[in-house]
Amino acid sequence: MADGESKRPAAEKPRGFRDRLGAELQAERRMLETIRAVYESYGFDPLETPAIEFADSLGKFLPDQDRPNEGVFAFRDDDEQWLSLRYDLTAPLARFVAENYDALPKPFRRYQVGQVFRNEKPGPGRYREFTQFDADTVGTASMLADAELCMMLCDVMERLGLGQDSVVKVNNRKILNAVLTSIGATTDAQRLTVLRAIDKIDRLGLEGVRLLLGPGRKDESGDFTKGAGLDAAKVDRALAFVGAAANSRTAVCDTFDRLVGEDTEGRAGVTELRQIDAALTGAGYDDTRVMFDPSVVRGLAYYTGPVIEAELTFQVRNDDGQLVRFGSVAGGGRYDDLVTRFKGVQVPATGISIGVSRLQAALAARGAATTQATGPVVVLVMDKDATSSYVAMAKELREAGLRAEVYAGTSGMKAQLKYADKRQSPVAVIEGSDERAKGVVTLKDLELGAERAKDIKDRDAWAKGADAQVTIPRENLVAEVKKIIAAQKVRA
Amino acid sequence: MADGESKRPAAEKPRGFRDRLGAELQAERRMLETIRAVYESYGFDPLETPAIEFADSLGKFLPDQDRPNEGVFAFRDDDEQWLSLRYDLTAPLARFVAENYDALPKPFRRYQVGQVFRNEKPGPGRYREFTQFDADTVGTASMLADAELCMMLCDVMERLGLGQDSVVKVNNRKILNAVLTSIGATTDAQRLTVLRAIDKIDRLGLEGVRLLLGPGRKDESGDFTKGAGLDAAKVDRALAFVGAAANSRTAVCDTFDRLVGEDTEGRAGVTELRQIDAALTGAGYDDTRVMFDPSVVRGLAYYTGPVIEAELTFQVRNDDGQLVRFGSVAGGGRYDDLVTRFKGVQVPATGISIGVSRLQAALAARGAATTQATGPVVVLVMDKDATSSYVAMAKELREAGLRAEVYAGTSGMKAQLKYADKRQSPVAVIEGSDERAKGVVTLKDLELGAERAKDIKDRDAWAKGADAQVTIPRENLVAEVKKIIAAQKVRA
Repeated sequence: MADGESKRPAAEKPRGFRDRLGAELQAERRMLETIRAVYESYGFDPLETPAIEFADSLGKFLPDQDRPNEGVFAFRDDDEQWLSLRYDLTAPLARFVAENYDALPKPFRRYQVGQVFRNEKPGPGRYREFTQFDADTVGTASMLADAELCMMLCDVMERLGLGQDSVVKVNNRKILNAVLTSIGATTDAQRLTVLRAIDKIDRLGLEGVRLLLGPGRKDESGDFTKGAGLDAAKVDRALAFVGAAANSRTAVCDTFDRLVGEDTEGRAGVTELRQIDAALTGAGYDDTRVMFDPSVVRGLAYYTGPVIEAELTFQVRNDDGQLVRFGSVAGGGRYDDLVTRFKGVQVPATGISIGVSRLQAALAARGAATTQATGPVVVLVMDKDATSSYVAMAKELREAGLRAEVYAGTSGMKAQLKYADKRQSPVAVIEGSDERAKGVVTLKDLELGAERAKDIKDRDAWAKGADAQVTIPRENLVAEVKKIIAAQKVRA
Repeated sequence: MADGESKRPAAEKPRGFRDRLGAELQAERRMLETIRAVYESYGFDPLETPAIEFADSLGKFLPDQDRPNEGVFAFRDDDEQWLSLRYDLTAPLARFVAENYDALPKPFRRYQVGQVFRNEKPGPGRYREFTQFDADTVGTASMLADAELCMMLCDVMERLGLGQDSVVKVNNRKILNAVLTSIGATTDAQRLTVLRAIDKIDRLGLEGVRLLLGPGRKDESGDFTKGAGLDAAKVDRALAFVGAAANSRTAVCDTFDRLVGEDTEGRAGVTELRQIDAALTGAGYDDTRVMFDPSVVRGLAYYTGPVIEAELTFQVRNDDGQLVRFGSVAGGGRYDDLVTRFKGVQVPATGISIGVSRLQAALAARGAATTQATGPVVVLVMDKDATSSYVAMAKELREAGLRAEVYAGTSGMKAQLKYADKRQSPVAVIEGSDERAKGVVTLKDLELGAERAKDIKDRDAWAKGADAQVTIPRENLVAEVKKIIAAQKVRA
């Protein structure tokens, strides 16, 4: 291949995609293992479906009704069939359940973690490939399943050290539907406009929502958002529901009871919330951990019963420097039309999805994910003919459970020490021919010595100035390296 | 959404994709963690790159030269740019290294595990989405890096319990090139034909390769494969190299020394192998674990130095019922043109790739991956009004480190026990109103009771016939469940 200069491709990623390396990935892996352990402890089993499905079977649009035909990567394979990259893990679950319905235990509990793809313009913190960690229970209408999902979210937050900083909020679409019916919002479009207004209560407050439900609202920048055009009585009625927050789940249910009146769907929704409350209370999840919040909407139109959201309550600075609540990191709810598209029958299902990157950002903001990954011990190559001695040392260290590598480049000692620093190596092992003749090795504590490393001109200069080094008998290698690393951990 | 019958999509996956569930995924996860631990112990750090790259930067074809422009899923995003799904993890590594070259430590050691995609006709055991687990060292020509990769493959096999069943084989493309030069195969096409013939030595033996290098070969079915058309002397010369196998690495190197004569590239290749041998010997990896094998070719044209293959030596039955060697599960080698396409300069690199599904199939064939996943303890729902009691029991069990769930469906006891069996639950917990009044619960050992479960007509019939059940005080729940599970493990 003789590539001319002009034909060289740029070394870059498409917008909205990212590379991740080292400590960030290790922190994410620990987080994913924590979530996995919680999901498995509740009897959920892993499922893995392909990243690619028939475009037809995923559906041609994201579930969000206002963006049909957008957002999905689609292409034809060599059989000329239209395929799509999955945009979430729920659509593939629907296909899987429809394909294997008779063979599955019912209820069917599965978790799935995986990358999903959106073909849209990326923004800050918004990627076109990201990871979701879902758990769903399929094939039961029992509210126990929904209550469990709330408990699982609580347990995940607790085990990640976010127990005091998080709350799980639950609402019920059936109750929201009763509101919508009572104010005459009957078409899908009307309902979506109202729900979207309510959804903004955290950001705009009750008065902002009042404007969006009525005549419309002008924001700080002067932009005008058209309102739902409801008359004042209907707006009051809607806000009475949304504002029905209270400290206890029972109190919220009692208020709902009065407000839904004789609306059948609304009454069913209140009953469902009371069942969830009973299960949560039985398992010891009190009102501070799971609360009923009438303002929780969840954007997707397909929810049919309880909707769930896990929120982090601590404050972070946003891009404008203002302190804001960290907010939602997971959500879900009940959707009874999971396999309707495939089988023409309803199969009740309920599920949650954790936004992995967002939760990891939260952990980082809380300092919980900042533990540096430990770099490997680096055995320097002082003498190319002594490679077998160096690899033997690295092997001993590995067998003792430490990460260790022999410097595999061709540079001199100064560059090797710089390399070890860049690798966040705790200790460099040095055995020149003198040391080897005497049966000793020199260990350099790279954490203590990091500052000084910049000025090293040659080995002698370094040896004179160093107090972060020790020369020890070769046979004590493993013990002495462990001693230095232990001391570093104590200092940290 | 009112889907008519006629518009329903079929619930199916595109050909060559698969769903995986439960125990298989859990076994794979354990295997991946083992590989990860080995790679990390050698100082390799994780990297994650996107599944999607610019088509341009991946290159438009798989590295295998005979299939240009084939095998890649490509599509346009909403910026009208051509994107591709990665077909391996090496091409994205090249882009990453070219993009970040100055900031990376050199040598740069990274591992990556991830899905890759091939747009081709699938076959038995050949999928269009599969997992690779790669480790590469970039930026050094030192043979230490290649030797390390061999050690890592040995360690992986050892830790997976395949130490006695595996061997790592090493050859050097420079030596193969000396052979090719000496027999006058100078064009890429000629070289590929010869290499491909040699590559078949395991399957066809020396005599089969002799025919492929010369006049051609007719197989059992009568199909004729065109030969390379070499004359007998050249064929002999090629086979002298390929047949130069011996028990010791030193002996193979000595034979190569004689055979390459004064060919500069060939001599360099032998020197490289001797350096690898020295490092391996120093670290204690003897000739039984890593052998030099002149017949190892590796299909890809881009290797420029050592080539590496990990083979499993035990026999399995193939589709025709014949006993055959399990064969290759990982491979790699040195390729010095990693970033040449992007930067116009050579950066030496060497790497290995483990075929995850194939290695898992090997573990399954060896019985190493057959440990059944333990299903959750299932708390039956005998009495819908007692849900809080059931969820409390499940919570206690989980807090004691067990998997536990409350049956979340709406069926009766018989169906609940069937469900628990299907879930491979070890124990069912039963608390009816009688038990609750007395402060006891009944535990059913589902492993002992599995046979009998089919005949259960109602609770009384089951209670009479059962010897696999025990009634215990409610407060001993956790201890007694643990006792039953421990006894099951002893029996297993």
